[in-house]
Formats: sequence, structure tokens, C-alpha cells
Amino acid sequence: MSARLSSNADYESLLDKYDTWMFDCDGVLWHGDRLIEGAVQVLDILRRRNKKVLFVTNNATKSRKSYKGKFDQLGVEAHVDEIYGSAYAAAVYISSVVKLPKEKKVYVIGMKGLEEELHDEGLSFLGGTDPADSTVEPFSLADFTLDPDVGAVVCGLDTAINYTKLSKAFQYLTRNPGCLFLATNEDSTYPAGGGLLPGAGAISAPLRYALGKDPIAIGKPASTMLDCIKAKVDYDPKRTIMVGDRLNTDILFGQNGGLATLLVLTGITTEAEITGPNASSIVPDYVTASIGDLRVLGE
Amino acid sequence: MSARLSSNADYESLLDKYDTWMFDCDGVLWHGDRLIEGAVQVLDILRRRNKKVLFVTNNATKSRKSYKGKFDQLGVEAHVDEIYGSAYAAAVYISSVVKLPKEKKVYVIGMKGLEEELHDEGLSFLGGTDPADSTVEPFSLADFTLDPDVGAVVCGLDTAINYTKLSKAFQYLTRNPGCLFLATNEDSTYPAGGGLLPGAGAISAPLRYALGKDPIAIGKPASTMLDCIKAKVDYDPKRTIMVGDRLNTDILFGQNGGLATLLVLTGITTEAEITGPNASSIVPDYVTASIGDLRVLGE
Repeated sequence: MSARLSSNADYESLLDKYDTWMFDCDGVLWHGDRLIEGAVQVLDILRRRNKKVLFVTNNATKSRKSYKGKFDQLGVEAHVDEIYGSAYAAAVYISSVVKLPKEKKVYVIGMKGLEEELHDEGLSFLGGTDPADSTVEPFSLADFTLDPDVGAVVCGLDTAINYTKLSKAFQYLTRNPGCLFLATNEDSTYPAGGGLLPGAGAISAPLRYALGKDPIAIGKPASTMLDCIKAKVDYDPKRTIMVGDRLNTDILFGQNGGLATLLVLTGITTEAEITGPNASSIVPDYVTASIGDLRVLGE
Repeated sequence: MSARLSSNADYESLLDKYDTWMFDCDGVLWHGDRLIEGAVQVLDILRRRNKKVLFVTNNATKSRKSYKGKFDQLGVEAHVDEIYGSAYAAAVYISSVVKLPKEKKVYVIGMKGLEEELHDEGLSFLGGTDPADSTVEPFSLADFTLDPDVGAVVCGLDTAINYTKLSKAFQYLTRNPGCLFLATNEDSTYPAGGGLLPGAGAISAPLRYALGKDPIAIGKPASTMLDCIKAKVDYDPKRTIMVGDRLNTDILFGQNGGLATLLVLTGITTEAEITGPNASSIVPDYVTASIGDLRVLGE
């Protein structure tokens, strides 16, 4: 059963126990363009107490650099090397784990941020935001020339998804021997404009269905993301806590990595999903209404 | 085990046993724009012997009327009332089985043929080929007005699929109470231009994934298609045979409907999938290399 946090003593005890604090962002620190009340103060308290702060997001539409712009815009202190996005983790995975040979290329279903991270890792890519592939015109297989150097297809959230991109990716995955199938993350939906829209997992779903095969998933809850953090940051899992608003991504990610977990109720997960007879089997260590609750420690 | 047909006597015996012959088209009668050798002669033989001939296709991009144009162009005799396509069956299902109230509308992910069949069944629809929805521009949920009269979303193969269509469909399916989720068919791929491209099942896959829910499937192998045929055609299942090139659509469809099944090897299914240790668990009653083999009966 999760511990419900509510008193100063609860929050003080939490700070004593954990040195590294990993945060999901949307639904935890902000909603779209609106800060969660108290979030900035709580991050300041953590920094003043010499806690290591990391931001771990499945958002694959932005590079870490442009994601930092989001923090700046909302007045939240963050440094690029504290930000771990699934686009960055996917690029690191391809360049450093898979070690895709230099002459090979990545076919991208995704947006500018994913391209930027691939570029920064020295990877060649095609597709993505290329205007030639951003079309709803019919795709002609007879007119398509297969590039034999494409060794991986990576899918992130792509709001310009279309049949040409899906068809080209499908050709690479079925006709180029050993071509890898990667997904930045498998979120079924994401919050936008006051509601939910289909997420990155929905963008890779057509290929998953056509191939009868699942992609290698990079983002939360997959441990690939944590492997990427491990390679760059020194932290003790026993003294690390993951803070998030989603049971099946954030909380599961923390649990898969042997971290403590704190669920906040300012995002996707509702009270009904953690209590009562239909509660999820994913049980966080701690629950609090909002990350802003911890600001009492600074008063 | 399947019976392998090869002699005149085999084919004669088959003709004696079955009065109604249901044919899949692509991979059985033709490949794209190329007739399978002997297919026309075999259909003529069947008609001369007073067999009932039906064409049962999962192709949802064409209405029956325009699909007849394909037969005409290839010189294959066919009548509109012999053609059962999944677009037609989906429209009949919505109008006659579900009985969608007159004031309700269908949101279409699909092409002109699907719209034509919905129109012919007296159904109102939106989406589909509407230029406003055929775009790769970003979709703004904040600017979207939900039409409360949308009572069903139907997905067929749509080569102009994009994020706006998926997002609108997702809103109707999550925000309009009781909104039905239908797929014309669930084919993972389809043959085109000398290879395979993602099929209608891949087009509904993003919604399936985002919703965590399967659509009601209309086409083969679902029995919904046969229910639609049953409503229009008088046939005895015991004296009916389904001829197809796909185990998991055509052959399974025949078996689900209590029909005999004949697999031809001119399409998707290869010899390796029906023989040896890795053979499929779907076993047709009969196998022959090509429907053209039966033309010996006319010699």
C-alpha cells in the first residue's frame, strides 16, 4: 500500500531519504503552459538542500535544448544536462548501445527534436520533417527507391504522420535485413489543449500491426531510458525517487529501475485508479496530491 | 490435412460438390492490374454450369460500383449484386444491424468508395475525403468543435491518413457516449505495386492503441461480412466454397461460416505456410496452385 503524505514530518522524512529526484514534467511540474502551483519553490528547496534534480520526459518532439526553452519560458531552473528526453535517449541508444555503423542511416517518423538529437549524436537520417515525406498524396511503391543504408527506423510522436512515411518505414523494416524498429516511447495518449490526443505509441502502432512485431521501446517505463541516465549520472538507486503522474509510465519506470516512487495526482492518474476495488496493480511507494505540497518545507 | 487437387477428376468432383462459389479477388483472380492466367475461363465454366458466383473482397477503398469497373477493365464478367466489399458491408452493418438513428453521423477514416457506400445506405458522414481533414498541418484540439451527432467512427484503408483524422476520431470515440468503433477490415498489409503496403488494420491501429480497445471488424475473417451476404443471397453453406489466397482472412472466413475452403497459391500464402513443421493451424479443405488450374474442365 502507498504511504499518503500530508504532514511536514512526512515531507521532511522524504527529503532525508532521497538524494536524487527524478521528475516527470507534464502533469507534475506543469500542465501545458501552466505551472503547477508551488512546483518552482519545491525545486528550489531541493536544490538548496543539495539534492540532485533530473527531468525525465517521454516527450520526443523536442530536443533537450529546445525542451530547456520550455523550462525557461515557465521560469523553472533547469540545465540541459539535467534533462533526459526520449528523443535524446533514442539517439544515444542507436549511437552508443546498438552502435549503428557510420555509413548507416536512420529513417525517422518524428519531429524536429528527434532529428536534432540524432544529428547531435552524429547519426545520418532521412524522413522526419523532410517536406517530400510530409504529404497526404498517394504513395507509389513502384516509384519508391529503397535506400539500402537505412539500418533503423525510429518512431516518435509525429503530428505530420501520413501514409508515405508509414509505407517507407514498412519497406525498410521488411526489406533491409536487420533493420531495427525503435519507438521513442509507447504512451498511448498525451495531454494537449485541455484534452488527450493520440500519443507516440499510437504513431508506431500501424507499423507494429503491419509487421506483427513490437518495437524496442526507449522511454519510460522501459529501462533503456534509465540505462541512458546511468551512463551519464552517478546516483544511488536506493537513495533515488521518481516523481510522476502516470502509473504505467513514471511509476513503473521507477519500480523497474529499483527506485522509490512518488505519485502526484495533478496529471493523468486519478484517485479512483489507486484506491478501491479497481485499483491498478502498479502501487507507488508514496502518494501526494501535488508536488507543490512539499513547499511547506521552505516556509 | 488439405486435399491437393491436381487431376481432372479432382476438379470435376469439386464442381459437383459446391453450388455457390465465393471468391476473394486480388491474389486469386488478379494481381493488381494483371489477370491470373485462366481465371476468366474458370469463371465462365462455373457460370455455364449454373454455379452461383460471388466476389467477397476486403477492399474498402472502392464501392461495389467502382469495383465493378475493375472487373470490366480486366474483362472479367461480374454484376454489382455479386460483389461484396467491406465498405458496402460496413455501411449495411451501420444502417441495418446497428440501425444508427437518422440524425446521427459517421466519422470516416477512409476513401471515396467507403463514402459512396455510406451515402447509398442513406447515412450522413463527415471526415473521409473532406479536404479540411486531408492535411499534415498540426491539429489544434483547442480549435476543434465536437459534433455531438457523430455516433460511429469507421476506419478503412486510407492512404491520406493523418494526425487530424486520427485526433478527431479519437475525440468522438472518447467524448461522444456510445460512439461505435468499426473497422472495414483488419488486413495487416495488402499487395500493391509489386510489394506489400500497410493495410486497413494498420490504419485503425493507432486508435486501437490509443483507446486500448479493438474495433468491431466487418470484413473477412469476421462473420459480419457473411451476415451481410446471408441477408441478400440464398445459399446452402454445405454446398458453398470460399476460394482465397490468405489463410487468416479468406480461409478463416470460410471456416467461421461453415463453408468449404479452397486455398490458391497465387497470392499471399506460400507453400511453406501450409506444409512442414511451421505450418499454420488454419488448414483449408483444398489446395491448388492457381484458380486457373480448373480450366481443364472446359477443354
